Amino acid sequence: MNLQVDWLRLPALAASMAFFLAGPVLADSLPQTAPRSAEVADFRLDNGMEVVVIPDRRAPIVTHMVWYKAGSADEPPGKSGIAHFFEHLMFKGTTNHKAGEFDAAISAIGGSNNAFTSYDYTAFYETVTPEALGEMMGYEADRMRNLILSDEVVATERDVILEERRSRIDNSPDALLDEEVNATLYQNQPYRIPVIGWKQEIEQLNRTDAKAFYDHYYTPNNAVLVVAGDVDAQTVKQLAEQTYGKLARGPDLPPRIRPVEPEQKTARTVTLRDPRVSVPSFSTQWVVPSYHSQKNGEAEALDLLSEILGGGSRSRLYQQLVVKKGIAASAGASFQGTMLDDTSFVVYGAPRGDAKLEDVEAAANAEVSRIATDGVTADELEKAKDRLVRSMIFARDRQAAMANIYGATLATGGTVADVEEWPERIRRVSADQVKAVAARYLGMDHATTGYLLPQPRAEN
Amino acid sequence: MNLQVDWLRLPALAASMAFFLAGPVLADSLPQTAPRSAEVADFRLDNGMEVVVIPDRRAPIVTHMVWYKAGSADEPPGKSGIAHFFEHLMFKGTTNHKAGEFDAAISAIGGSNNAFTSYDYTAFYETVTPEALGEMMGYEADRMRNLILSDEVVATERDVILEERRSRIDNSPDALLDEEVNATLYQNQPYRIPVIGWKQEIEQLNRTDAKAFYDHYYTPNNAVLVVAGDVDAQTVKQLAEQTYGKLARGPDLPPRIRPVEPEQKTARTVTLRDPRVSVPSFSTQWVVPSYHSQKNGEAEALDLLSEILGGGSRSRLYQQLVVKKGIAASAGASFQGTMLDDTSFVVYGAPRGDAKLEDVEAAANAEVSRIATDGVTADELEKAKDRLVRSMIFARDRQAAMANIYGATLATGGTVADVEEWPERIRRVSADQVKAVAARYLGMDHATTGYLLPQPRAEN
Repeated sequence: MNLQVDWLRLPALAASMAFFLAGPVLADSLPQTAPRSAEVADFRLDNGMEVVVIPDRRAPIVTHMVWYKAGSADEPPGKSGIAHFFEHLMFKGTTNHKAGEFDAAISAIGGSNNAFTSYDYTAFYETVTPEALGEMMGYEADRMRNLILSDEVVATERDVILEERRSRIDNSPDALLDEEVNATLYQNQPYRIPVIGWKQEIEQLNRTDAKAFYDHYYTPNNAVLVVAGDVDAQTVKQLAEQTYGKLARGPDLPPRIRPVEPEQKTARTVTLRDPRVSVPSFSTQWVVPSYHSQKNGEAEALDLLSEILGGGSRSRLYQQLVVKKGIAASAGASFQGTMLDDTSFVVYGAPRGDAKLEDVEAAANAEVSRIATDGVTADELEKAKDRLVRSMIFARDRQAAMANIYGATLATGGTVADVEEWPERIRRVSADQVKAVAARYLGMDHATTGYLLPQPRAEN
Repeated sequence: MNLQVDWLRLPALAASMAFFLAGPVLADSLPQTAPRSAEVADFRLDNGMEVVVIPDRRAPIVTHMVWYKAGSADEPPGKSGIAHFFEHLMFKGTTNHKAGEFDAAISAIGGSNNAFTSYDYTAFYETVTPEALGEMMGYEADRMRNLILSDEVVATERDVILEERRSRIDNSPDALLDEEVNATLYQNQPYRIPVIGWKQEIEQLNRTDAKAFYDHYYTPNNAVLVVAGDVDAQTVKQLAEQTYGKLARGPDLPPRIRPVEPEQKTARTVTLRDPRVSVPSFSTQWVVPSYHSQKNGEAEALDLLSEILGGGSRSRLYQQLVVKKGIAASAGASFQGTMLDDTSFVVYGAPRGDAKLEDVEAAANAEVSRIATDGVTADELEKAKDRLVRSMIFARDRQAAMANIYGATLATGGTVADVEEWPERIRRVSADQVKAVAARYLGMDHATTGYLLPQPRAEN
């Protein structure tokens, strides 16, 4: 039961669509075009549930995922954490199966399973042999509607989550800073609220809140089923109709229109000094369009900007700050484009040895300004495109990664075509467009910078 | 139709309960106890409307106010500005009176009227001769329930409000900075949202939003009638029963429990550089308890802390920074205690002549730290108590000020007794309590500081 609370904040993970790819994506000897996988199927059951099938016949494994279009940014005011809380509750008993039965069934056949919650969605997945797919669907369909939500179950799990918050957030200066940076960067959009929830609000979550969230969001017409692996679309369709297809359609949900961010006119800083910190660091962030909220190809340009500026060891930030100047232990950039609403672009760094944090920050800012002023070269743009497009080719080699890409895209307002056309859209971005998004969005007069510093000053 | 958007931000106005008093409160020759005014009456009509009568027979004038327990902090997500918008709409036509008729009736008898919106309430008032009181009640009761909300009326007024936002906020660097400081200080509480609303949300407000707000909040059982002046409680009761008393009670509203602020662990800054600014300034803010949200007399101690630290020319900040060091053109502190939820404590200053802003800020911080560490003297505490208590005595001399104090207190969860006992509670605060609130709340490691600076640096 993962909590993807750190999506926007862990620069090492949160790079573009390549986020879902765990391995390195920098090998040189790869083909320039994707080995076309078997056709991806996309259809709907009669009750409105969308189904995506990504055939991959190389090994007798299937990845079965259900994505709900409900994340922390969909929570009612004052109920922060209920989306993630509900993800936990989905592992409790139903009217048909005791708590633990589903997990035991998966273990018995050597499969694995888990779940995660983010701002825009909550997803549940199992990796099993193809023969077990129908059984998985049966369990997953069952818990979509038949959970038993008693006061006792809710109270017990609330304590688990409060402990999770203590260990993952309150014990981590990085995480504490991230929360307040996030809430300073976003002043109106719900991405300002931590996925795990504010402590004082988690403490108040109850059965009524859980039931309301379940009834509202956990319906077939608000879910996307993604099946990747050794199976064909016809089989998936048949099994899905026999399981999910039996569930009644829920009420139509209104469009996911959330409060949006006003234009930022100030520069903001957030500073945490903590004795547990050994190396200082900074991260500078801006609100930028996502793939879903953008109007004209700016998200693709931002993905390339992120790659050129700070995507790994070939990037400008790494080459200038870490390799050439030798002042930084780390430096990079990230852009999490697969979001429903405007998202964040992050530049980060930490000094090496005796170098000063402010020098690393100034050098990083200079690299940002340089692109905004002078643009990028044709050569580095081509190489960045190669790297991004190859990341998708690599993804095709990992069925869970592909399932993730389709699921996250569909759960944030995108389509199957968006995933398939993405490499081509990346190819079409011009150097001018990359320069333009840097100039338009990454101004220092409206940046939000977080500082994590080693020790408190001797003041009051 | 005033917008009290600046309540928390205009330090010169926002001092304690003394906020409502326009005149100086520093005269020396006043009695130490309040000249007891005639008994204040407090009762309810059958439909739940609370009525407060503050007799003041010195002149043939009455101030008639209706306070609705609905302000910007009660707005639904994404609908910022609807409370203030609705205040404007209340001046439109009803099923019984054309738009303008109410205003004309007041003018005809030489009276005056207006309205204002704040975070926790919206109030409407008229000052007239006692003979006109029944007529005022008739008009006010009429518009509580009988407004005509057509698409046209709503659209026209929306343009007026957008223009108001342009002239009062967007044309004012101070106001722009205040908005973002506020949204940085409060990361979860709705006080982070500007009373006038975010531009992009005002633009979307429509008749449906207005109607929903009206139906929900504009009911007799969600309103407080305050009448101060040349009238007795029996007459007010009789007139109120004949007018407001005819209105049906609305549905019971749930308790006003809003998202609360998590504990701030970081220091934050917000900087606006603008060519329109001539003198730089700073304001440092902290989230502190209000009279309503406090647990144990801390609000009274914060009022005294504010008075001692920065309440006028006798305060430490003024004496040290303006008089003694001569480095500040202005310096002070404020605490707006009459709020439903946790509120802000502000320290502010601006340099004089060639003095540097950072020196003024450091000197102000030193004064804050000094109280947190060394406390206040018995003598300055006594004098501060005298000044605050006298402010209430002065208020008794101005019927509108008294009506405001009772109205704001009742609309933020307080009682008539709270107002009457306030001087005594101020008298009971010890020097240790003042020191304790300074030490507990005003730490620099969790302060939010806004900087208004004259000119943009030469950077991208």
